[in-house]
Amino acid sequence: MHKVIFDTDPGIDDAMALLFLHQHPDIDLIGITTVFGNASIETTTRNALYLKKTWNIAAPVAKGLGETLDPSRPHVDWPTAIHGDDGLGNIGVSDKVDVDLDPRPAHRFIIETVRAHPGEVTIVAVGRMTNLALALKEDPDIAVLVKDVVIMGGAFDVPGNITPAAEANIHGDPDAADVTMTAPWPVTVVGLDVTTKTVMTRKLMADIAMTGGERATLLAKISQFYIEFYEQHVEDGMVVHDSCACVYVVAPHLFETRSGAIRVICGGIADGQTIQKPDSRSFPPSPWDDLPSQSVCTSVDADAVLALIAKTIGRPA
Amino acid sequence: MHKVIFDTDPGIDDAMALLFLHQHPDIDLIGITTVFGNASIETTTRNALYLKKTWNIAAPVAKGLGETLDPSRPHVDWPTAIHGDDGLGNIGVSDKVDVDLDPRPAHRFIIETVRAHPGEVTIVAVGRMTNLALALKEDPDIAVLVKDVVIMGGAFDVPGNITPAAEANIHGDPDAADVTMTAPWPVTVVGLDVTTKTVMTRKLMADIAMTGGERATLLAKISQFYIEFYEQHVEDGMVVHDSCACVYVVAPHLFETRSGAIRVICGGIADGQTIQKPDSRSFPPSPWDDLPSQSVCTSVDADAVLALIAKTIGRPA
Ligand SMILES: [Ca+2]
Ligand SMILES: [Ca+2]
Repeated sequence: MHKVIFDTDPGIDDAMALLFLHQHPDIDLIGITTVFGNASIETTTRNALYLKKTWNIAAPVAKGLGETLDPSRPHVDWPTAIHGDDGLGNIGVSDKVDVDLDPRPAHRFIIETVRAHPGEVTIVAVGRMTNLALALKEDPDIAVLVKDVVIMGGAFDVPGNITPAAEANIHGDPDAADVTMTAPWPVTVVGLDVTTKTVMTRKLMADIAMTGGERATLLAKISQFYIEFYEQHVEDGMVVHDSCACVYVVAPHLFETRSGAIRVICGGIADGQTIQKPDSRSFPPSPWDDLPSQSVCTSVDADAVLALIAKTIGRPA
Repeated sequence: MHKVIFDTDPGIDDAMALLFLHQHPDIDLIGITTVFGNASIETTTRNALYLKKTWNIAAPVAKGLGETLDPSRPHVDWPTAIHGDDGLGNIGVSDKVDVDLDPRPAHRFIIETVRAHPGEVTIVAVGRMTNLALALKEDPDIAVLVKDVVIMGGAFDVPGNITPAAEANIHGDPDAADVTMTAPWPVTVVGLDVTTKTVMTRKLMADIAMTGGERATLLAKISQFYIEFYEQHVEDGMVVHDSCACVYVVAPHLFETRSGAIRVICGGIADGQTIQKPDSRSFPPSPWDDLPSQSVCTSVDADAVLALIAKTIGRPA
């Protein structure tokens, strides 16, 4: 069993990833921490509580901070064109959800949960890395107590999506991402190099809704808005960015990875770009030296990933 | 016939490229402009004069400036481990070569030659882009009078070579490269994405020396030092970076290209990185907008490129 803390900004593809974690038999979801990104921290936290209640998820929800690690960074508008005004495809989530939040801020929740289960916790982070960086800042020693960190973010051998250089999760808080990538915990980065290859068709989504009962039906309803947005980018369906990171936890053999130190560009026109120094290459002294070697996913068996997602979220609840 | 100005920092792979341009029947080499990089401007200029004399090249040599476009950039040591103390593999080039320089600085030579042949001149630049940027700065109108610019430099979908982010020619003067890439002239960039795939074996070099007479024999002698350096990077032989750009002029069909605006990162840990915004992709507003679409080589028929180089420089002079 993988004990997982899910750090998330739901968000439509976050919702699918959450359902995957909740329903996969090898995953013990022990906490949900929220971060701003696809919407404000109030909205993403409300959405996490809504999905927890609707899908009957036991794990507590802890609310993260609502601004970047460097508070002087300018605010960027929420991507309502992708995730809807409510962050869940405009399905009309009620403003107030009758579920209690964990009393701790997200980064304290992460610290205390990792310390309660030393060497056992996998953090799956599919939004900005603000909470992870804050946890490391407040308690750097947790790095060696975490089992694994799996991140959805970045673009290594392919262009970004929010700029030609940068992917949105990293671009949303580059300073936090650089802290996260360079900390002495084992990070695997599941970025656009593989997620953009992993496209769930409308047909597959409909099949899942058919077999998966109420939970999957709600997910399919939430996803329609996102699928319509993606019409300009993919032939048919939705890129399942965040679910790819969750699949990696239970089926790493479906991905090829490359090892090497990772830095995130902070500032300038490449702000938020992720650059790896492959361990197989040698360079003159550079800012990538003496940093932990992390894993970057470079290719994926997309059909197998989609099949595993379909099997997991499409099984009757 | 392609009228070519060759902007170069000889440099061992520069020497091969120069011999290719000199001997290819479809190329009319009308000028050689020197730039610092593989060695100081004094050394690269001396080497250009030496090769002009030894190989009986008619084109004049004009000396470029010896520092970056932004003179406050720190000086970096010359790569003597790759090109030798004399820039030509330590073959022992005499300090003084008895050939006259063109009286004009390189960037003036470029301006006046382009203006003398409007719409006809191809600039092949295989060192730092300092001379090109200076020419554009002094006379921006030449951009629309140049037929083509072909550059060896940059790394787009692969790591750099001088840092994980940057290739050496671009890293050596990023400000100049950004001016060059964003000017309204048609640029094709032949970077590490294709040059590192184009490796001339010792055997092929020996065959060329056998058939090509004194010129090719000298080239093979110069190249030994470089081949020994490359032993740590490739199985056997030398990466013919600069010759790839020359081959592109006469055989563009041997390359696949991708179109889109190119920016060069200036400053920070990604200093000198080249980033293209592919025309096939859409992004929110970014610093790549409203710039000319340039071509980046993304793949190469390396065997055919090597065969064309061998045929051209291996034919009896
Ligand atoms: Ca997300
Ligand atoms: Ca060169």
